[in-house]
Amino acid sequence: MLILLTNDDGIYAPGIAAAYHELTKLGEVHVIAPETVQSATGHGITISTPLLTQRVVVGEGETAFEGIAVEGRPADCVKLASAKLLPRQPDLVVSGINSGANVGINVLYSGTVAAAIEAAFLGLPAVALSLYLRNHIPADYARTAQLSRRVIEQVLEAGLKGGQVVSVNLPPLLPDQQPTGVRVVRQCARPWADTYEQRNDPRGRPYFWNTSVFTLGDTEDDTDVAALRDNYITVTPLHFDLTHYPMLKEWRDRPWRA
Amino acid sequence: MLILLTNDDGIYAPGIAAAYHELTKLGEVHVIAPETVQSATGHGITISTPLLTQRVVVGEGETAFEGIAVEGRPADCVKLASAKLLPRQPDLVVSGINSGANVGINVLYSGTVAAAIEAAFLGLPAVALSLYLRNHIPADYARTAQLSRRVIEQVLEAGLKGGQVVSVNLPPLLPDQQPTGVRVVRQCARPWADTYEQRNDPRGRPYFWNTSVFTLGDTEDDTDVAALRDNYITVTPLHFDLTHYPMLKEWRDRPWRA
Repeated sequence: MLILLTNDDGIYAPGIAAAYHELTKLGEVHVIAPETVQSATGHGITISTPLLTQRVVVGEGETAFEGIAVEGRPADCVKLASAKLLPRQPDLVVSGINSGANVGINVLYSGTVAAAIEAAFLGLPAVALSLYLRNHIPADYARTAQLSRRVIEQVLEAGLKGGQVVSVNLPPLLPDQQPTGVRVVRQCARPWADTYEQRNDPRGRPYFWNTSVFTLGDTEDDTDVAALRDNYITVTPLHFDLTHYPMLKEWRDRPWRA
Repeated sequence: MLILLTNDDGIYAPGIAAAYHELTKLGEVHVIAPETVQSATGHGITISTPLLTQRVVVGEGETAFEGIAVEGRPADCVKLASAKLLPRQPDLVVSGINSGANVGINVLYSGTVAAAIEAAFLGLPAVALSLYLRNHIPADYARTAQLSRRVIEQVLEAGLKGGQVVSVNLPPLLPDQQPTGVRVVRQCARPWADTYEQRNDPRGRPYFWNTSVFTLGDTEDDTDVAALRDNYITVTPLHFDLTHYPMLKEWRDRPWRA
């Protein structure tokens, strides 16, 4: 199995290294990822500037591995890998492990998820992996990668097809703690209120810092947010048809005029 | 009616000026838009750097208007406008007029659409406007804005609610040409094949230019792509719950294990 591994935290992030070592148990892993951190870039792509690439070695000693760093966005990495850099089309595209959860409407801001959706655009099966970080629990990427690999095996058993994409979120776990289980859940679509702090620059011009703190807020019982808060590993199948079909049906036959 | 007007081509783009002048017929228009071009930024947001803002005058003479330029992404403009810059929550958010169509899976790359979806996140009603550009037809933003305003009036009559978002695409028209009509259509979800040209830098390092040409490709009859190609004004209601419900239902009861 040929696996393309990318992310949005950049090729030198700890999450992608941990994922690499686990995924080599499933197949031949090609790492093609952004040179720099691309968090919250959403589904941005690069059209008017060139994509510089560089073969790099990540890590040291026995656990070092090779990859290609792309000066671009996560979705660019997937496009370029598929069009030019891989020896053949991959059997699976994995994006992550992201440092931070991608649940609720954050799914739309996430470069990690965008890379996986881009793969689905191209007809490939794709999985996005994200670790929910909490201050008082040290991030254990090796263990998260192991749990992720087991979920990926089950996703493949379930028959993930080309063009399908699932987003997997993993709970933060203390060393002696187990995940509650695995739940297949929908994306919470509740709004997320941003807060900003205003300051003035030395010339008196106002500028604003986003001061929002990511928390798993109020939600319904059957969502990614609820399940992740209960320490489940969450699996959310995603699609990329943004059409609102009930509105479409309601509005289609109105007497529109140009 | 208080209208927030933003875009992704930047506050000095011709499309936003044309939209401004038409929308003043519907209410009080506040222009808060990116300082610079933000095409294809998708739903990126700014978290770790400050958002600089500046009060600017756009245009000259009688048609000049004031606005706030934000050094950030389209979605940042909407967040910041709602949280800090507007005197009260807007009754309508309009994003555009984008220089270029936003149909098919381009909807997910589009900063124009992301701004409108961001407004819907915040519980506001939102409309994205995009003009399909063709080389042999000069872009007429004034006329496009007039057609857009008429469609917005009908969208409001149809009862666009807070949290709902529609993407409107307008066809390129020769001076003596009329749009075929208005059609409410779904987003085409077909893949889009990118092409890249490889070059080598003076030190021999490979880099890649995206050489894809946007065309309205093969599609089904009932999509935005098909209708826009037939010179219709297209109206596509969008949502932001990316859950793939049929897969969710199929996978939920499998024997998942952590």
